[in-house]
Amino acid sequence: MDQFATKPHDALAGALRGELEEVNSLIREKMVSEHAPRIPEVTAHLIEAGGKRLRPMLTLAAARLCGYTGGYHVHLAATVEFIHTATLLHDDVVDESEQRRGRPTANLLWDNQSSVLVGDYLFARAFELMVEPGNLRVLKILASASATIAEGEVLQLSVARNIATSEETYLKVIRGKTAALFSAATEAGAVLSDAPEDQVKALRDYGDALGIAFQMADDLLDYQGDSGQTGKNVGDDFRERKLTLPVIRAIAGADEDERAFWHRTIGRGKQEDGDLETALSLLAKHAALESTRDSAYAWADKARASLEVLPESDLRNVLADLASYVVSRLN
Amino acid sequence: MDQFATKPHDALAGALRGELEEVNSLIREKMVSEHAPRIPEVTAHLIEAGGKRLRPMLTLAAARLCGYTGGYHVHLAATVEFIHTATLLHDDVVDESEQRRGRPTANLLWDNQSSVLVGDYLFARAFELMVEPGNLRVLKILASASATIAEGEVLQLSVARNIATSEETYLKVIRGKTAALFSAATEAGAVLSDAPEDQVKALRDYGDALGIAFQMADDLLDYQGDSGQTGKNVGDDFRERKLTLPVIRAIAGADEDERAFWHRTIGRGKQEDGDLETALSLLAKHAALESTRDSAYAWADKARASLEVLPESDLRNVLADLASYVVSRLN
Repeated sequence: MDQFATKPHDALAGALRGELEEVNSLIREKMVSEHAPRIPEVTAHLIEAGGKRLRPMLTLAAARLCGYTGGYHVHLAATVEFIHTATLLHDDVVDESEQRRGRPTANLLWDNQSSVLVGDYLFARAFELMVEPGNLRVLKILASASATIAEGEVLQLSVARNIATSEETYLKVIRGKTAALFSAATEAGAVLSDAPEDQVKALRDYGDALGIAFQMADDLLDYQGDSGQTGKNVGDDFRERKLTLPVIRAIAGADEDERAFWHRTIGRGKQEDGDLETALSLLAKHAALESTRDSAYAWADKARASLEVLPESDLRNVLADLASYVVSRLN
Repeated sequence: MDQFATKPHDALAGALRGELEEVNSLIREKMVSEHAPRIPEVTAHLIEAGGKRLRPMLTLAAARLCGYTGGYHVHLAATVEFIHTATLLHDDVVDESEQRRGRPTANLLWDNQSSVLVGDYLFARAFELMVEPGNLRVLKILASASATIAEGEVLQLSVARNIATSEETYLKVIRGKTAALFSAATEAGAVLSDAPEDQVKALRDYGDALGIAFQMADDLLDYQGDSGQTGKNVGDDFRERKLTLPVIRAIAGADEDERAFWHRTIGRGKQEDGDLETALSLLAKHAALESTRDSAYAWADKARASLEVLPESDLRNVLADLASYVVSRLN
């Protein structure tokens, strides 16, 4: 896409450079463990591995948009990154993943035990960090987001491979796995800044819609491909029998034979050569990729629209561009 | 032991009956998940399984000893039980355990994934609960204890099977796995009550020493047996190659042949018939069980002595008895 001369993500990193440095320093400082040297080893493997720091940047940007002049947004940004890293460690155990960000996962390099326990450590450190600003409302937002994340993951596990999964359930799952932390990241930045309630709501809604658009785009790219940008292979979700939006929509319109196909391949996991091609043709037949793309675009529009109650500024425009960017990969 | 007409644990439950009911109600209320019914299933399996609620009772007792008249000690007590339950779920995954409290573990009944994610959910719920009293110092205590717990578990993993493990490291591990939550439970109760600093320190020290005595007794009973009270088999820790205090002390006095024995059985895990008997005879030769018992008694004494700055009361005496009781199993 040449629509963006500078990727909005890089523009955000540029605008927040100084604060982002502080976040990185704080992360390095807090991931140290005097007693258990394995903790910083495992954490560094993940945190230094070129994560884009998108979530902490959302907190920094929200605070700045709301005129925050203190220093505690840095703590909240580091908190958000720690929560994110902890969930990645646990996700890789749950999914038995072997690769993350193009490198072997911690559970593969060390063991599941280390991933579980270091995740717990980071989670506890996140809570220590978030207490520091002394803002109880911020604490409630972040604690509640953490519960929603775990709830979404358990829900995903419970409905996995169930071809009766509804769009409503899918939305709950992706709110949990992605949007809850995005919206807590932006809302916490606004609340820390004592922003007026309409701005708090605007930033919470922005994070929520951005997260949903982001995850829908990811789920679509799994079937559509994006010229190697994600590093995922087309059909990974099909092989892992995940009920994502494109499949849910194809199943919604399925005739009896098609339903039997989804039941066999996703429900019972009996996959044969040629099944991915059949799945792709069924997605095409029911225009499931197009309609998922439309939905992702609609959420990106909602994200941009949410920002309108905030005073206009370059930073606000970068956040709006970011919403466009996460779905621009879909063209 | 007939030294205690009523077990101190039951005396404590009797004295705190009303508040303990409230804790149980709050736990039941908060373990519900609207979106993911598996969460209360897994949690109930563990929480309803006859855990003794020792940790929440410590919080309730500390608050009452410090003259607390509000209602938030109930939230903190439930918090402490949630943290404890979350760590049990994760421990069973890490240890690949199949039994807990005489019943199959959650990882066996459901799967490791559910145990990891439901543990995360309970951990997040614990943080939501602990925010409610609005006491930042209490939040710091409990968040920091959570980090110490995870750190202790990672440390235990890193030094597992290493026969060079020192007593100092052992103490760090058991502070993490047991004493940190005991002392946070009592300290949080005192801080919530706005108790004077010497009482806060007394209750923190009591919890720390009680937890250490408790864990040392557990580690000793693993070799000594206690007439079926623990439900553990003699030698479980030996078979799992754990470096507990009795073994550390036997290794400290080992000659060359004995060291080779420990290296083979614990270090390399090459165990044969008759090795447990040899291990027991080496523990006897070096009086390692007696000296571990002496240490456990000394920590129980320290726990009782810590209480002396608190005004005398029946409840204080029950806490003192509790310290005696946890090591009375050793006779």
